[in-house]
Amino acid sequence: MNKTILLKSRPEGTPTLDNFEFAEIDKPTVSEGQVLLKTKYVSVDPYLRGRMRDEKSYIEPFQLDEPIQSGIIAEVVASENPDFKTGDYINGMLDWKKIQTHNGKGLQKVDQSKAPLSAYLGILGLTGITAYVGLLKIGEPKEGETVLVSGASGAVGSVVGQIAKIKGCKVVGIAGSDEKINLLQDTFGFDEGINYNKTNTMQKAIKEACPNGVDIYFDNVGGEILDAAIANMNRFGRVVNCGAISLYNETEQPTGPRLETSLVKKSLKMQGFIARDYQDDFNKIVPQLASWLQKDKLTYEETIVDRFENIPQAFIDLFDGKNKGKMVVKV
Amino acid sequence: MNKTILLKSRPEGTPTLDNFEFAEIDKPTVSEGQVLLKTKYVSVDPYLRGRMRDEKSYIEPFQLDEPIQSGIIAEVVASENPDFKTGDYINGMLDWKKIQTHNGKGLQKVDQSKAPLSAYLGILGLTGITAYVGLLKIGEPKEGETVLVSGASGAVGSVVGQIAKIKGCKVVGIAGSDEKINLLQDTFGFDEGINYNKTNTMQKAIKEACPNGVDIYFDNVGGEILDAAIANMNRFGRVVNCGAISLYNETEQPTGPRLETSLVKKSLKMQGFIARDYQDDFNKIVPQLASWLQKDKLTYEETIVDRFENIPQAFIDLFDGKNKGKMVVKV
Repeated sequence: MNKTILLKSRPEGTPTLDNFEFAEIDKPTVSEGQVLLKTKYVSVDPYLRGRMRDEKSYIEPFQLDEPIQSGIIAEVVASENPDFKTGDYINGMLDWKKIQTHNGKGLQKVDQSKAPLSAYLGILGLTGITAYVGLLKIGEPKEGETVLVSGASGAVGSVVGQIAKIKGCKVVGIAGSDEKINLLQDTFGFDEGINYNKTNTMQKAIKEACPNGVDIYFDNVGGEILDAAIANMNRFGRVVNCGAISLYNETEQPTGPRLETSLVKKSLKMQGFIARDYQDDFNKIVPQLASWLQKDKLTYEETIVDRFENIPQAFIDLFDGKNKGKMVVKV
Repeated sequence: MNKTILLKSRPEGTPTLDNFEFAEIDKPTVSEGQVLLKTKYVSVDPYLRGRMRDEKSYIEPFQLDEPIQSGIIAEVVASENPDFKTGDYINGMLDWKKIQTHNGKGLQKVDQSKAPLSAYLGILGLTGITAYVGLLKIGEPKEGETVLVSGASGAVGSVVGQIAKIKGCKVVGIAGSDEKINLLQDTFGFDEGINYNKTNTMQKAIKEACPNGVDIYFDNVGGEILDAAIANMNRFGRVVNCGAISLYNETEQPTGPRLETSLVKKSLKMQGFIARDYQDDFNKIVPQLASWLQKDKLTYEETIVDRFENIPQAFIDLFDGKNKGKMVVKV
């Protein structure tokens, strides 16, 4: 039998298992031009929370009683599409289904001999690309500058810090446990770490960790940590707005100090983006990431959860920071 | 006798005449290398409110019991500096004094035959330059885009709108009276105007005036008008943070909806700046502004207040929007 996971109800606040429904569906058969895909690895990402809201955004919201989608690595188990053959592995934006058909458009082949399959959802996939374009295209780091990263032990943050080190910056990471801070410093080569759960005033903690001020703040969390970072930014600083996980589950419009006066006073830039904004550059960026990976200039952590049935829980756990590095589900 | 205006106390909230003190001082004499300057026109600008706070910023705060400074056009009435001769007119950041000496550094000569003296404080001075660099360097307008400007009938806003028209954009201005809206449309060539004092919901008013959404929002006011603009921004929109006059007199940290989620969702840029960030380009920008002025592609309004004694009141009146275009005091 085949299985899928549907959006049963839109989460209010933090998503719960009740928001998801498992359904048994028929195993599809391939028509001409199609491939039959068997799901191997499923990416769970904070941004999916946004698609669960019935709101206009850069991507259509998920529909109720329809399958949820995310980045998936799948094996081609049958093909009537000349571009793919049985045994190929592909990366695509696919339904949360064990087996599905696809017309092949937008699927990328991935090479298991060059990197583990799951890496194509992480460091060599959208998360690695997100870190790359956010830091380099928006942050524009210069040697010797100070880069502050929140969500630093997460999928994107851990790559941002390492690329910033490659570019000769001082790198300070913010995360939520001593274990994660150790990971930042020992595995990812961050210069300093701030455990926000052990800090009374983030503004002061950042000041101590960044005595020369912050030139680039790569923000994955939003909210009060963003405010504290802004207070420590140097003139001409750049805030890279990659995500705001601290706000995604809010049911009311979150409020905070107005930032416009700080932007003017310090000639600051704040800029949001998604990786797809730089789609035309992907074919240059992925080989660069792969090359750094091969030369051990980049490393990565994964939190791999087993079984298709655990996809919703893995997604929910993102909001408690239960992942280190990229969270993926192995089916 | 000579006169100066000192900062007597730091304003709490909106500045009042009590915050200023007039003092009689000696008429200075020139030493070698100096010029003796007689004040002709004094610029009053919203940003001066920021310098009245005892806070670190891009420029030193004014000191208590010391003269206030702003952009001033003065006549050289005696010179022991070879770069200047009696009868020259100069533009510089000078003390609020009727007569003062200066070493000449940073003073620019202005040519009364090319434009009225007061224009060098406005359209050909920092306000014109501010409009130019903010719109063109940060906003990067493309033909056919929609540009929304707040404080649109003010010194900077009125120039922003006109340059946006030169660049082939649709231009919508926000101001606080029907008289100002008429000025925007009849004199400055804006396509549409929104009187925020006659509008219940700015978000809806902007939507109606900008049916294709907003590509560039040039913000002189901050606060709720900024929020309403953000809600109407198109993907890849640019917010040019030039000022936040609605917040300058707040005594508590102003709060508002958090914007970071919108920045990410719509790949928006918000960027603060001051004209001086582009100082190296001034010698190209001013001739461009002068050329547009000569060709009647640009026009300007001034609110000219008479008498040195009225400088503080003219400054205070900025916060009630009593000026149309650039506010200057003729001494």
